[in-house]
Amino acid sequence: MIETRLTRAFGLEHPIVSAPMALASGGALAAAVSGAGGLGLIGGGYGDAEWLETAFRDAGNARVGCGFITWKLAQQPHLLDAVLAHDPAVLFLSFGDPRPFGDQIADAAVPLICQVQTIEHLDQAIEAGAKAVVAQGGEAGGHGATRGTLNFVAEAADHLTRHAPNVLLLAAGGIADGRGLAASLMLGADGVLIGTRFWATQECLAPVPMRQAGIAANGDQTIRSSLPDIARRLDWPAPFTIRTARNAFTDTWEGDPEGLRQQDELPAAYAKAFQAGDADLAPPIVGEAIGLIHDMPKAGDVVTRIATEAEALLAGAWRR
Amino acid sequence: MIETRLTRAFGLEHPIVSAPMALASGGALAAAVSGAGGLGLIGGGYGDAEWLETAFRDAGNARVGCGFITWKLAQQPHLLDAVLAHDPAVLFLSFGDPRPFGDQIADAAVPLICQVQTIEHLDQAIEAGAKAVVAQGGEAGGHGATRGTLNFVAEAADHLTRHAPNVLLLAAGGIADGRGLAASLMLGADGVLIGTRFWATQECLAPVPMRQAGIAANGDQTIRSSLPDIARRLDWPAPFTIRTARNAFTDTWEGDPEGLRQQDELPAAYAKAFQAGDADLAPPIVGEAIGLIHDMPKAGDVVTRIATEAEALLAGAWRR
Repeated sequence: MIETRLTRAFGLEHPIVSAPMALASGGALAAAVSGAGGLGLIGGGYGDAEWLETAFRDAGNARVGCGFITWKLAQQPHLLDAVLAHDPAVLFLSFGDPRPFGDQIADAAVPLICQVQTIEHLDQAIEAGAKAVVAQGGEAGGHGATRGTLNFVAEAADHLTRHAPNVLLLAAGGIADGRGLAASLMLGADGVLIGTRFWATQECLAPVPMRQAGIAANGDQTIRSSLPDIARRLDWPAPFTIRTARNAFTDTWEGDPEGLRQQDELPAAYAKAFQAGDADLAPPIVGEAIGLIHDMPKAGDVVTRIATEAEALLAGAWRR
Repeated sequence: MIETRLTRAFGLEHPIVSAPMALASGGALAAAVSGAGGLGLIGGGYGDAEWLETAFRDAGNARVGCGFITWKLAQQPHLLDAVLAHDPAVLFLSFGDPRPFGDQIADAAVPLICQVQTIEHLDQAIEAGAKAVVAQGGEAGGHGATRGTLNFVAEAADHLTRHAPNVLLLAAGGIADGRGLAASLMLGADGVLIGTRFWATQECLAPVPMRQAGIAANGDQTIRSSLPDIARRLDWPAPFTIRTARNAFTDTWEGDPEGLRQQDELPAAYAKAFQAGDADLAPPIVGEAIGLIHDMPKAGDVVTRIATEAEALLAGAWRR
């Protein structure tokens, strides 16, 4: 058992949190992670009240949290009331300024976790009253920025030591196994937030062919770009881009984002492909850690596997 | 003492290798690292026979290695003879296909270390007969590509386990302290290659004002681009770009590399600024790990400090 400030603060068996991946992390995935001793998060994403109610229903009695895309939540703040009414284990915010939401979340006595991509974001998270921050590196799947996980986690740890020593730190981006967890603890993190590894599980809501196409990629075969957001006509603010697998779509438009903007019929086709799991058009949303992933187990087994491997490494199995 | 396959293979006290930074890693720096129990490398860089002779002379009797930019070495292969005549501890190649040089280096009975940036490069290194490979993540200072160190090291470890289990693995990119070394060992590395931390030492050959300007940056304030190569009219092949601190020069040209290409008088001014340590024009060549660096100690002290911190972490000091 790996005991950290995170496991103590949240009553977890393992310092492992599943990322609230929009439209992929539903109630069953979050519940499975929490059920295995981690902390599962529902992916509130762009905010769909009905989808969120379904997710909380699917989570049953499991103690799960919920995450939002901050800049999108700011456009529909009523969704925060609806989620806080479920008394989530944590409220998770990423991609935008969390400070406007800090008071409401504190008043609800729900712990706030903020994911940050730069040291400047980290200061905003501290001001927002975050109980924990996630230092997310650019190798992560889905949205993020460009800092490298390994050094960003260490720099964030130093920054917290100086400015907010009671705020917990999680590492995210490129972590898919016990090696990544053990490494993160060495860097000063209290735990990890894991996306892609939980995306490639039985409980993930992404279409099966999409997940199969993702697993086939190695870590060289991903790309961080704005192309999927252009195709979806989603107005993501800087500095956020989205990492996906490379496919025919990213190969076609990598050098010509302006051309993509002018494709009037593409958004509808893209949305259809995303829903249907057509990975040639809509690329699987995975991080570089997909190169460490070769199967699609149950999410609870992933938690156990990561914890067991990390425990062995911390006990000296790194020697060879 | 941290014993790994690397320390055993090369007779080191610590699994720490200093990067062969072009024009920065001279003989004194390499000798100081080796003298402290690591392995110091001279930065052969773009290849200047006279500079190399001076560097080996400055290294004195210390057991040091030498690194080259592979695509540049291919244009002046006679430099390899000259360096092999010094019987270096290792020959280090990065940025290009090392296979054409494998036989000559093997015939000289000099161990080959290849730095790689993708899994495809890793296969080339294995074919070239590398005794060790360095998996370099994009957070590294200077030239490199885009993989994140944390997950790339783990994927490279898996790849070597399957295809070349006797080839040693070093991690590079974003590593500046004992946390980075301990984390790298957890990821499956046998040691680390460290650039920026050794750049910010007394023995580094970069001008003092350049080093002082670099140290002032945090990890958010770097950029990976081709701008310095365009300014220097250096024809670097894909996928290699160079990470530097941000400065007025990178801010000006970040969005307009074609405009920079058309600045006829800039190359001379840039070269002069680089030599003089004018960090407003020629940006300090540092990685994201500059955010972990706040001083300019002796290189030998850096080796000791990193080893001591990593030993403590591996003994359980990560717990809190």
